[in-house]
Amino acid sequence: MLVLINLKTYPCDPIAVATAAREVDETTTARIAVAPQAAHLERVAETGVETWAQHVDPIEHGSNTGHALAETVSEAGAVGTLLNHSERRLRLADIDGSLEAARRADLETIVCANNPAQIGAAAALGPDAVAVEPPKLIGTGTPVSQADPDVVEDAVDAAAAAGEDVSVLCGAGISTGEDVVAARELGAEGVLLASGVAKADDPRAALEALVEPL
Amino acid sequence: MLVLINLKTYPCDPIAVATAAREVDETTTARIAVAPQAAHLERVAETGVETWAQHVDPIEHGSNTGHALAETVSEAGAVGTLLNHSERRLRLADIDGSLEAARRADLETIVCANNPAQIGAAAALGPDAVAVEPPKLIGTGTPVSQADPDVVEDAVDAAAAAGEDVSVLCGAGISTGEDVVAARELGAEGVLLASGVAKADDPRAALEALVEPL
Amino acid sequence: MLVLINLKTYPCDPIAVATAAREVDETTTARIAVAPQAAHLERVAETGVETWAQHVDPIEHGSNTGHALAETVSEAGAVGTLLNHSERRLRLADIDGSLEAARRADLETIVCANNPAQIGAAAALGPDAVAVEPPKLIGTGTPVSQADPDVVEDAVDAAAAAGEDVSVLCGAGISTGEDVVAARELGAEGVLLASGVAKADDPRAALEALVEPL
Amino acid sequence: MLVLINLKTYPCDPIAVATAAREVDETTTARIAVAPQAAHLERVAETGVETWAQHVDPIEHGSNTGHALAETVSEAGAVGTLLNHSERRLRLADIDGSLEAARRADLETIVCANNPAQIGAAAALGPDAVAVEPPKLIGTGTPVSQADPDVVEDAVDAAAAAGEDVSVLCGAGISTGEDVVAARELGAEGVLLASGVAKADDPRAALEALVEPL
Repeated sequence: MLVLINLKTYPCDPIAVATAAREVDETTTARIAVAPQAAHLERVAETGVETWAQHVDPIEHGSNTGHALAETVSEAGAVGTLLNHSERRLRLADIDGSLEAARRADLETIVCANNPAQIGAAAALGPDAVAVEPPKLIGTGTPVSQADPDVVEDAVDAAAAAGEDVSVLCGAGISTGEDVVAARELGAEGVLLASGVAKADDPRAALEALVEPL
Repeated sequence: MLVLINLKTYPCDPIAVATAAREVDETTTARIAVAPQAAHLERVAETGVETWAQHVDPIEHGSNTGHALAETVSEAGAVGTLLNHSERRLRLADIDGSLEAARRADLETIVCANNPAQIGAAAALGPDAVAVEPPKLIGTGTPVSQADPDVVEDAVDAAAAAGEDVSVLCGAGISTGEDVVAARELGAEGVLLASGVAKADDPRAALEALVEPL
Repeated sequence: MLVLINLKTYPCDPIAVATAAREVDETTTARIAVAPQAAHLERVAETGVETWAQHVDPIEHGSNTGHALAETVSEAGAVGTLLNHSERRLRLADIDGSLEAARRADLETIVCANNPAQIGAAAALGPDAVAVEPPKLIGTGTPVSQADPDVVEDAVDAAAAAGEDVSVLCGAGISTGEDVVAARELGAEGVLLASGVAKADDPRAALEALVEPL
Repeated sequence: MLVLINLKTYPCDPIAVATAAREVDETTTARIAVAPQAAHLERVAETGVETWAQHVDPIEHGSNTGHALAETVSEAGAVGTLLNHSERRLRLADIDGSLEAARRADLETIVCANNPAQIGAAAALGPDAVAVEPPKLIGTGTPVSQADPDVVEDAVDAAAAAGEDVSVLCGAGISTGEDVVAARELGAEGVLLASGVAKADDPRAALEALVEPL
């Protein structure tokens, strides 16, 4: 079970969260990873935690100003990247281009999407995983696995129908270990988390509680 | 076989092209349609030709300025709409939203895309059809069915794999009747055309030549 | 005093509002105009009312799908266009390009912006007018001239400082004749209106009440 | 005279260029700075060179994925940021928002623009500097100060007319010391450079040649 903590642009200490994540990772069968801001990638990766980028652009080396290059993200220590997060929506052709860039740089990929239809579309592009995030649940603290379990199951079916070997993650409202277990029971192979860990007073305790029931 | 003529913002007389298209439509088994600019929809529809919009936005009635509402396009006489044309790329979530808007207004839908992977993604969203337009062929006069027949066949396979009943159109470089026949033989159920008819000195003759071999 | 009614994508009858606007225009010193959706431009212009587009794109005749061409808007009967409305924000370079397109087609231009700094920037591009719309007041029914009169005066100063002859319009929360008078007293030479007229049970009565104090 | 080297996403060694820039900076009255990719900001700043970001987003701390936060850029060691580069065009409202974010984090700002009208608009938003980059000259090796000296002078006038104390930089085609001197003589207080240094076999020699005539 992949537990990916998106640090967004929260005012947290990325090194403290990364260190806690690495330590808890050693105590559990879950695979814990952290996605910091681009400027923090190198220092987060140096903690030894599995490190992900929040975004890469559909570009190559060259004349691109203010963009995230997959090769740079990879050299900074990231092993994967989120794409098309609800806070960074991309055009269809650019998701495809960013996936190509990520593959070129040996980055794993998770494409986020709103609903089962979009999950099927994202899966057809051949990422390693997709994450379903119903917009109405983002930031509510109500997990999609509880508020709308059909969405998770339908997303799993849509990803399977795309005929590629694409994992499904659950990406909205996860905050407790029970939510993680419920997501797994619906067919999800991972969860996306953000404020529940990144803004916790004690990120390590928050993570321990999350993975404890696994 | 659907022959859809995209008038883009060419300096052509949309009524003259529409009238020619309606007249040629009566002489052939092909289904001929015209996609004018939004401001020309009503007058083009009044010629009796099958009329399509070039784009609709992922919106409903309400506070939206400078957008194309599916209901308005439908009331103006359009029976369908292009979406995600290479000159009007959309975010994945907005293709989904525009498809929802089009269905609400009973518009047929054709989603354009660059390559078989994106065609598979577009087809997973459940449009009536998809159109494959390799960027390197757009505007070249070299038809995709000739320059790169595998792209058309792969697009047909990708659309079929999406498990929905989605037709595939061929959308780049079509300019002769042979191109249309070749597209059909590769599995396409229609073609997108633009300058070959819209900028022809005699649009009626250009259309007649296109559909003659069918 | 210009009173421009933006019909957005409201479910109103654009011809009924246009006809009412034309009739009330004949009874007042105010200049009343209507900005319908693109597909309604021709029929609205045929009522004889002063007609505006809601948007034009920074393009010329050519290969552009799903865009609004200034020449087409003009031939449809529009005499001007809004640009950069808060519901259709543009990149700086595209406001410049759209202004160039509008000038080429002899369209008057109103560039919308959020605050006095952006109004100064918009005015520096040389439109005919700018419209200040503080985002927090849009749709509130509280006129900017009342909630935040300094914004209007600062916008008038910023437009004057741009050294071009650029009028300032007041564009948020206007719903009564007193609001229009207050806007004029702060230096505005016009107002942007939307739901107050477009969604009124009796658009003609709503307009008469608006211009009565002028 | 500010000489700002934009490393874009070139396949150069950012530390080598930064070290060369710091060393040459000590030998000249010019002020030399380097703008690396976000993931390289910390290591570039550690070389002691003046470090700039290529972009920051119009956001605050919070729920933003895949964005560049001004505070993070500043903490990583940057003292300023480019905005609205021709390869990263922004909406007018977002240039204003990004400037506000940069001021909040005590970052200097340079807003790029295409032509004198846009330079006037950019200057009206109150950045520290603007950079004029005629699109037709970008990447040509022909300096704007030579191909079109009026553009530089008109940009200086437009920035002055905005009534703020805004410097003007010359941002296209600069590759020799003569170009830098010519830009200065036209009123520019700095230059933007990219491939001429970043892709040079010997970045230090390239920089020395650039600042030698100053």
